[in-house]
Amino acid sequence: MPGSTFGTLLRLHTFGESHGEAVGGIIDGFPAGFRPDFEAVQLQLNRRKPGQSSITTPRKEDDKLEILSGLFEGLTTGAPIAFMVRNKNANPADYEHLRDVYRPSHADFTWQSKFGIRDHRGGGRSSARETLSRVVAGALAEQWLATFGISVTAWVSAVGPIQMPDDIQVLNRQQIDAYSVRCPHEDTANKMIELIEELRHDGDSTGGVISAQILGLPAGLGEPVFDKFHAELGKAILSINAVKGFEIGSGFSGSSLRGSQHNDAFVASAEGEIETAANNSGGVQGGITNGAPVYFRAAFKPVASIARPQDTVNKQGEHEVISIHGRHDPCVVPRAVPIVEAMAALVAADFLLRSNAIINTLKG
Amino acid sequence: MPGSTFGTLLRLHTFGESHGEAVGGIIDGFPAGFRPDFEAVQLQLNRRKPGQSSITTPRKEDDKLEILSGLFEGLTTGAPIAFMVRNKNANPADYEHLRDVYRPSHADFTWQSKFGIRDHRGGGRSSARETLSRVVAGALAEQWLATFGISVTAWVSAVGPIQMPDDIQVLNRQQIDAYSVRCPHEDTANKMIELIEELRHDGDSTGGVISAQILGLPAGLGEPVFDKFHAELGKAILSINAVKGFEIGSGFSGSSLRGSQHNDAFVASAEGEIETAANNSGGVQGGITNGAPVYFRAAFKPVASIARPQDTVNKQGEHEVISIHGRHDPCVVPRAVPIVEAMAALVAADFLLRSNAIINTLKG
Amino acid sequence: MPGSTFGTLLRLHTFGESHGEAVGGIIDGFPAGFRPDFEAVQLQLNRRKPGQSSITTPRKEDDKLEILSGLFEGLTTGAPIAFMVRNKNANPADYEHLRDVYRPSHADFTWQSKFGIRDHRGGGRSSARETLSRVVAGALAEQWLATFGISVTAWVSAVGPIQMPDDIQVLNRQQIDAYSVRCPHEDTANKMIELIEELRHDGDSTGGVISAQILGLPAGLGEPVFDKFHAELGKAILSINAVKGFEIGSGFSGSSLRGSQHNDAFVASAEGEIETAANNSGGVQGGITNGAPVYFRAAFKPVASIARPQDTVNKQGEHEVISIHGRHDPCVVPRAVPIVEAMAALVAADFLLRSNAIINTLKG
Amino acid sequence: MPGSTFGTLLRLHTFGESHGEAVGGIIDGFPAGFRPDFEAVQLQLNRRKPGQSSITTPRKEDDKLEILSGLFEGLTTGAPIAFMVRNKNANPADYEHLRDVYRPSHADFTWQSKFGIRDHRGGGRSSARETLSRVVAGALAEQWLATFGISVTAWVSAVGPIQMPDDIQVLNRQQIDAYSVRCPHEDTANKMIELIEELRHDGDSTGGVISAQILGLPAGLGEPVFDKFHAELGKAILSINAVKGFEIGSGFSGSSLRGSQHNDAFVASAEGEIETAANNSGGVQGGITNGAPVYFRAAFKPVASIARPQDTVNKQGEHEVISIHGRHDPCVVPRAVPIVEAMAALVAADFLLRSNAIINTLKG
Repeated sequence: MPGSTFGTLLRLHTFGESHGEAVGGIIDGFPAGFRPDFEAVQLQLNRRKPGQSSITTPRKEDDKLEILSGLFEGLTTGAPIAFMVRNKNANPADYEHLRDVYRPSHADFTWQSKFGIRDHRGGGRSSARETLSRVVAGALAEQWLATFGISVTAWVSAVGPIQMPDDIQVLNRQQIDAYSVRCPHEDTANKMIELIEELRHDGDSTGGVISAQILGLPAGLGEPVFDKFHAELGKAILSINAVKGFEIGSGFSGSSLRGSQHNDAFVASAEGEIETAANNSGGVQGGITNGAPVYFRAAFKPVASIARPQDTVNKQGEHEVISIHGRHDPCVVPRAVPIVEAMAALVAADFLLRSNAIINTLKG
Repeated sequence: MPGSTFGTLLRLHTFGESHGEAVGGIIDGFPAGFRPDFEAVQLQLNRRKPGQSSITTPRKEDDKLEILSGLFEGLTTGAPIAFMVRNKNANPADYEHLRDVYRPSHADFTWQSKFGIRDHRGGGRSSARETLSRVVAGALAEQWLATFGISVTAWVSAVGPIQMPDDIQVLNRQQIDAYSVRCPHEDTANKMIELIEELRHDGDSTGGVISAQILGLPAGLGEPVFDKFHAELGKAILSINAVKGFEIGSGFSGSSLRGSQHNDAFVASAEGEIETAANNSGGVQGGITNGAPVYFRAAFKPVASIARPQDTVNKQGEHEVISIHGRHDPCVVPRAVPIVEAMAALVAADFLLRSNAIINTLKG
Repeated sequence: MPGSTFGTLLRLHTFGESHGEAVGGIIDGFPAGFRPDFEAVQLQLNRRKPGQSSITTPRKEDDKLEILSGLFEGLTTGAPIAFMVRNKNANPADYEHLRDVYRPSHADFTWQSKFGIRDHRGGGRSSARETLSRVVAGALAEQWLATFGISVTAWVSAVGPIQMPDDIQVLNRQQIDAYSVRCPHEDTANKMIELIEELRHDGDSTGGVISAQILGLPAGLGEPVFDKFHAELGKAILSINAVKGFEIGSGFSGSSLRGSQHNDAFVASAEGEIETAANNSGGVQGGITNGAPVYFRAAFKPVASIARPQDTVNKQGEHEVISIHGRHDPCVVPRAVPIVEAMAALVAADFLLRSNAIINTLKG
Repeated sequence: MPGSTFGTLLRLHTFGESHGEAVGGIIDGFPAGFRPDFEAVQLQLNRRKPGQSSITTPRKEDDKLEILSGLFEGLTTGAPIAFMVRNKNANPADYEHLRDVYRPSHADFTWQSKFGIRDHRGGGRSSARETLSRVVAGALAEQWLATFGISVTAWVSAVGPIQMPDDIQVLNRQQIDAYSVRCPHEDTANKMIELIEELRHDGDSTGGVISAQILGLPAGLGEPVFDKFHAELGKAILSINAVKGFEIGSGFSGSSLRGSQHNDAFVASAEGEIETAANNSGGVQGGITNGAPVYFRAAFKPVASIARPQDTVNKQGEHEVISIHGRHDPCVVPRAVPIVEAMAALVAADFLLRSNAIINTLKG
C-alpha cells in the first residue's frame, strides 16, 4: 500500500527509481506567496551529490532540478509544487549480474518478498537516490522556516569508532563544510578522513553518527500523545536509508542518570521569558517543544555495498559469492548531512503549520 | 490539531486525563470474527498497573476495563471497539499546589504554552495513565497476531547504569516476570532492585532501557520509503512517555563497525528458506521485514517526579522550590514493559493488514 | 478497515451499536479554551430523538450525554473530548426473529457479506442511532462556529411528493420547529403531516428532502482539486443513513440552464466588498467558498422498515415474508434535520481550521 | 493546506496548472506485477481531449503521456507511478487581460481570496486540464479492475433541458461513442448536438447530466459509517470541475416514493446467489455494495466561459464587462464522460483494496 508520503499539513510525495526515467516529488500544502531561492536548493543538492571530494564516490550525477508546477512569476501559489531530476548515466547491463542475486543487507530480498518483482538496477526504488527529493523539499521548507527565525544544522559526529568530542559548539554550515567529512572539529575530521581512505583501499566501509540541532522553534510545537514532536522527527530520521537509531536530548546516555541530575530546572530569563537552565530534554517535553534548541542524533549503519567478497544466495537459494564493485561511498554520513537537515526541516515546518491551526483559531 | 490517533489500517484513538472521568479509546479496523480473551488483556493491564511490587509506586489503581462496543456474542464484528476505565481515587485538592507551577521536565509548561490552558491534576492528558489505553489495544492486537504465530516480548535490559549482559537469550514473559524489575537475569535484576530501593530512599529516580523482540513476522512487512517498518515502530516507541531514544538491530553500536563485519550474509536453510546468517539488521532491510526476529531497544529518561527539592518557576515566572511527594515510581521501566509490547504489537498488526492489502489483490 | 472517522483537523471518531452498551465518540482537534454549552447540545439531541411528536416513532430513548474527557473546569483543553450515551431499553429477544433474515433495503445482507458476522439487533452498527454521536460533535462545532458569526440551519423541504414552495425564506430554527415536520411553511407542513399519518396507518413509509444553508462563511474555505468544500460536504451528507442524493447551489436543475442565465455576476457592494449578484453557485466556486450563503439539498430514501409484508430471503437463501413492526418513523426527515446540521457544521469547522493553517502562516 | 490527494490505499496525487510546465501525478499503492496497456490509457485521454468533434472546442492539445517511474520491464513494481503531460500552446499574452478581472462563476475570485495570489492563465490550477491526471490514473485503475470482471461506463443522459429516455439500457463505450455527444440514444443525441451548435452560435453554453454504472463489483465494498461506498463516490464525482449534484440509485426521485414501492426485495437466484429483485438502492445498502450494479448520476452546471458579454468586477472592485472568447466548449459533458469513469474506477479500486485488507486477514 502507499508509503511514499511524508507529512500532515506540509506533505511530500516522492517517486522514482535509481535507474528509471527520473526521481522527484510533489510538495502539497506549501504556503502561498513565498519566493523560493532555487540556487540555495541546488546548493543542498550539491552537498548530497556523489563525487564531491576524495572521500566520496567518484560517481557523477548531474542533479539538475526541474520545477513542473506550483509557482507563478517566482512565487508559490498554494498549488502543489512538482519537481524532478532526470536520471542519467544508466547502463542497465552494468546491473545485469544483480538481477537474481540478493546483496547482503540491501533491500533486494525484502522487496522481492513483498512485491514479487523488483527493479534490480542500483537498488531501484530503495536506492538512496530517492533522498534527492527529500533534499529539494527540505530545502524549500527551511527557507520558509528561516522567515520565522528557525534554522536546521546537521554535522558528522562519528565515523566508525572515531567520535567528535562533545564539547564542540557547532555554529553554521560553513564551519561544517570546512572539512570534506562534514565534522567541524579539525583533529577528528582528519582522523575520519584517514579512516575512510583506508576503508576505500580495503574495499570495506563503515557507519557513523550525524548530530543535528533545530534552533529558533517556538514553544508549543508537537501534538500530545502519538504525534509528539520527537516521535514524528524520529520517524522522519529513521526513514532515511541506513539509519538504525535515533535519540533526542540526552537519549540513551541520559537513561543512566538520576532524575535529580537529569531534570531541566525552569528559570526566568532577564527578559522574563521562561526557559530551562539545562537542556537534557533536547527542547521537547511531553512531546511539545519548549523553546530550547532541539538536538538529536542519528546512527547510520555501515554502507552495505563493499568490494570485498561476500557470501550470499540467489533467487533460487543457491550460494553465490558477490563483490560489489562500482562507485560507492565507504562511509555515507558526510553526504547524508543535508538529508538529515531536510527531514528535520520538513518535520519542523509541518508542526509549525499544524500548531498554527490551533493557535490562530482562538483569535477568531 | 488532532494527535491522539495511531495506525493506518488498525487505528487506535485514545482519550482521557489522569484525573478526569475516564481513560479509554476506540480501536477501529480490528478484523471481524475474532474472539478476544479479555482476561489476557487484564493481565497486561495488571503488569502496567502501579503498586505491583515493592519497587513500584504503592499508588493503587483498580483498572477495570469496560468494553462499550464492537463485540457481539463475544466476537469482534468489524465495528469500532470502544473501551474505557473509570478514574478513581482523585482528590483534586492534592494537586492544587501544582496549578500554577511548572514541574521540571514535565509537560506542564509546554502544554500551557501550546494550548493556553491545562488540566494540572496528575499531568492531565500528558499523564502516563494514557498508556493504559495502549495496553488494552496492544493486548488485543497481540492476540490476533498470535493466530499467525507472531509474538512480542519486552524486558528491562538496563536500570540506570546497571545493564544486563548481552548474551542472555530471553524466552518468555514468565521468565521476565520472575523478577519484579522485569529483567530476566538474576544477578542483574537483584542489583537493579537494590538501586531502585536506594533511589526511593533518596527521593530520587533513574531511567533505563527496555529491549524487545518480535518473533514470527513474515518477510514483506513495512512500506518502502517513508513508512518503513522500523520508522513506524520508532515513532510508536518514541511516543511513549519518557522515551528519548530508539534503535533497531545493531543500532548506535553498529555504526562503529565495518561493512564486512556488519552485513548479514544470506544463506539457505535446510528447508530451502532464504535466511540471514547474522541479524545485525534487526529483521528489517530497506524498511521491510526479512523474516528474521525484529529486535529493538528504547531509552527511558529518569522519572521527572522526584521528592528532592528542585528549582523551578510558576506561571508568572517567579522562582519556586518544589518537592514532588506522592506515589511515584523511582524507575518506570518495569511497568513500561507491557506498554512497549503494546506499541510493538499495534505496529506489527497494522503492517500485517497493510501488507495483506497488496499481497491479496494479486491473487484476485 | 477503519471507516468511523470524519474530518481532517477537527476529527470525529464514533463507536457503538444500537443495542450494545453505549454509542459515543471522540472529538479530536477541537480548539482549546472554549466553553461549550451542553444544554444547547442536549437540545439538538432532543431534536434528533425518537418520540418527539405524533408523527415520529413513540419509541422512547433517554439520550443522556456523558462527557468523559477533554474539559477542565468547563473549558476545552485541546485534549480529545470523549462522550457517550448509554443504551437502554434493549430486549434482545425482540430481535431474535431478525437474526437470520435480511430486511429489504437495510444493511443486514451487505454487513454480513462484508464481515461474515453481524449484530442483528436493531441494525447494530448500521443503525441510525450512530448519528447521535454526530449530533453531539456537530453541536459543539456549531457553537464554535458561532463565535465567527457562522450559522447552520436545515429544514424539511419535501416529504414524499409534497414539496415546499421555493420562495420561502428560512430564518431560524424556531420557525422550523414551529411545525412537528420541521417544514417552515404552514400549508406544506400540514399536508406533510397528513401524509405521514396516512402512511403510518398504512404501515408504509416515504422519503423526503432536507434543505440547508450555512451563513457567514468567509471566502476562502475549501481546498482546490479533490478536497473541494462541496465535495467534502457532499461526502458528509451522503454518509448519513438513507441519503441517496446531494446537490449544492442550482444542483440538478441548474444543469438545464444556459451559462448566460446561470453565471453569478460579480458586483461591488456599497461597502466595497466583492459579492455575487445571484447565487447559483451556492456559495462555492472552484471548490472554495466565495462568502455567499452555502445552500444544499439532501435526498432521503423512504424508510426501509415498514409494517407491510415484504418478500425477502434468509441467510440460507430461503424465501421468507417479513413484516417489520415496532416503533419506526414513517418518514425520517424531521428527525434528520439536526443530523444534517451537525454534518454541515463539522465540515465548516474543519475547513475553517484547515484554511487558517495557511492564512496564519503568511503572517509569521 | 494539502488538497490534491485522492484515495486511501490507492492514492492519486496530482499537480500542474493549465499553462505551467506540465500536468501530471503520482499513483501510490498500485498493486505490483500488473502490466498496464498504455494505448488504452491514451484512448481515454483522447476521449477527454479538446477538439474531438464539431461540438467540442477546436483547441488542440496534444496530450502525450510520459511515465516517469514505477514500471520495470513493462510491469508495475509496487513503487509510485509518476506521469506527466507537458503543456504546450501557451501564450501568456493571451491571458493578460484576465490578470485582474474575475470571470463570473470561475474560481478566480475564490482562489485569490484564499491564497492572495493566482495563476490567471487559463484557470491555473483550477483549470479542468487537471482532470487529465485523473483520466490517466482512472484508466490504469479500470484495467486492474477488469481482471476482477469489474467495469465502469458513463454516458451523457442530459444536455441542457434535453434528456435521454430512462428506458435505454447502455451496454458499452462503442455504443456511447457512436455519437459525438456521447449519448447512446440516436434521437436524443441529435437533438443535443443541435442544441450545442445553436449555443455555440449564440456565444452561450449549457450544462448537462452524466449517468454511469459500475458492473461486477462484489458485495462487501465500502466501509460502514463515514466511508460509505457512495459517500466516497459522491466526493469523487463532486470534486470534478463543474459538478453541482450527485445521486445514487433512485436518488432525488426516489425520495418521493413509498417504502413499499422503493424497497429492493431479496431473492435467491437459480444458482442460489442472494440478489435483489429491483435495484432502487443503486447497488449500495448501508454504504456497502450488495453485488448489484452501482449506478449514479452527476449534474454539471453550464460552462462558465461564454462569449456573451457579462458584468463583473476587477480586483479593485471596479465594474467591467467581459466577453470570454477563445476555444471553449458550449457544453462540457461529452468530454467529461471519461473523467467520471476515471473517478468511479479510482473509488472502486480503492475500496477493493480496502476491503481485501479485512477479508484476507481472516484467512490468515
